[in-house]
Amino acid sequence: MGESDSLAEFLAVAVDAAKKAGEIIRKGFHHAKHVEHKGQVDLVTETDKACEALIFDHLKQHLPEHKFIGEETTAACGATELTDHPTWIVDPLDGTTNFVHRFPFVCVSIGLTIGKIPTVGVVYNPILDEMFTGILGKGAFLNGNKINVSSQTELVKSLLATEVGTKRDKETVDATTNRINSLLFKVRSLRMSGSCALNLCGIACGRLDLFYELGFGGPWDVAGGVVIVQEAGGCIFDPSGKDFDITSQRVAASNPHLKDAFIEALRNAE
Amino acid sequence: MGESDSLAEFLAVAVDAAKKAGEIIRKGFHHAKHVEHKGQVDLVTETDKACEALIFDHLKQHLPEHKFIGEETTAACGATELTDHPTWIVDPLDGTTNFVHRFPFVCVSIGLTIGKIPTVGVVYNPILDEMFTGILGKGAFLNGNKINVSSQTELVKSLLATEVGTKRDKETVDATTNRINSLLFKVRSLRMSGSCALNLCGIACGRLDLFYELGFGGPWDVAGGVVIVQEAGGCIFDPSGKDFDITSQRVAASNPHLKDAFIEALRNAE
Repeated sequence: MGESDSLAEFLAVAVDAAKKAGEIIRKGFHHAKHVEHKGQVDLVTETDKACEALIFDHLKQHLPEHKFIGEETTAACGATELTDHPTWIVDPLDGTTNFVHRFPFVCVSIGLTIGKIPTVGVVYNPILDEMFTGILGKGAFLNGNKINVSSQTELVKSLLATEVGTKRDKETVDATTNRINSLLFKVRSLRMSGSCALNLCGIACGRLDLFYELGFGGPWDVAGGVVIVQEAGGCIFDPSGKDFDITSQRVAASNPHLKDAFIEALRNAE
Repeated sequence: MGESDSLAEFLAVAVDAAKKAGEIIRKGFHHAKHVEHKGQVDLVTETDKACEALIFDHLKQHLPEHKFIGEETTAACGATELTDHPTWIVDPLDGTTNFVHRFPFVCVSIGLTIGKIPTVGVVYNPILDEMFTGILGKGAFLNGNKINVSSQTELVKSLLATEVGTKRDKETVDATTNRINSLLFKVRSLRMSGSCALNLCGIACGRLDLFYELGFGGPWDVAGGVVIVQEAGGCIFDPSGKDFDITSQRVAASNPHLKDAFIEALRNAE
């Protein structure tokens, strides 16, 4: 079996895991409105944990030699160092605030790194039934149809996405809104959907032209999406313009035409 | 035929019109990715005009005695004064930037005012196939299921929606981001979806807890949504706390528990 056969098999296993977890998320999502506010945090935690356990069980059953990093496990047991070994990095429920509020941007994000390089990515929104997939060198797909980044070449016609994060100290909030203020003079408009992984997929399928986020939770927010963006013809980079570092909690994405102008706009926004 | 029978008939006519227009929007939305950038503005204009003509034809055929105000007609012929006469106020395509970028928050918005009071409302997102409806005194519904605003009582746990609008002069942009800065210290998180009418429906079905927007296009952005919010148990008001004025291009919405705290937060954000 060649390397690309293996990667296709890895993707198939991850897609099955994402569909199973998606079923749990979908049930919880539609159930959430009946839950009292006191119980909503528990519903999130329970759904998050149940999905992570299901995904890890499924992956480990089929790929017992691989390593695993998950948001929930990390929260419970501390950070696991990313090595060159094939490693699955999983966010069982990205967009937890949306989940609680039943805002339809929630997803499962599953990424495989090999030699620390994102190689296989799956991001599944079970509410909109949108399955984004990508394999290094093999293209990116939405529900099986090939996707591409936008062909936009002008910032002023570009749709930008970002998020306000969860930190509410004055320094962070001021930096966040100052950055937005500066960028608003240069782009067409701004969207905030509440899911880092789905923002990356928005870049990949051309719904969004520009995305950056600083200070998100961890590598599980981006591990699935970055290969999907890259395989859709997009660029992934640090908002400073430096190379992307999956452990840095900083990410920016765009098509190749917009990259330099976007980096300049981000620098001027600091 | 009693008054409420008439209103139910008016709603049925508007729902049919929204579904027909939604079909045009859905086709254009999925076609948009094949259109070169040069042609996208024309696609929007064509879809917008075709939908408005279709909706007006349908409404006039069934309700020839009524008056009509539409975004496209107003753009072409100037503002029509809102009178006490039954008047349909129509936005054939709310979320035009989303339409161009295939970001799935686009909708048809149709509202009927009688005595200047929003009385019947229809907001239809043809991409997610979500039909929001409301009749004064008869409740609000999503795809036929009764909806209610959230039961949230605390700003700090509330999900806020707003938009950055289209004006890019320094005074407007600074006011926009200063307001967001102030509010971020008080709410859980922020969403920007790009559709005023769908933000109102998000309040109505409890996906969002708080929404305000200043400087949107006109009464067609809100005429459908306000009755849906009110019939879902929500409040519609001017962001200053004064009474809502459908001609003012200013709107705020929340559940009744959050209204006073939201108004105070908005005042402190000025």
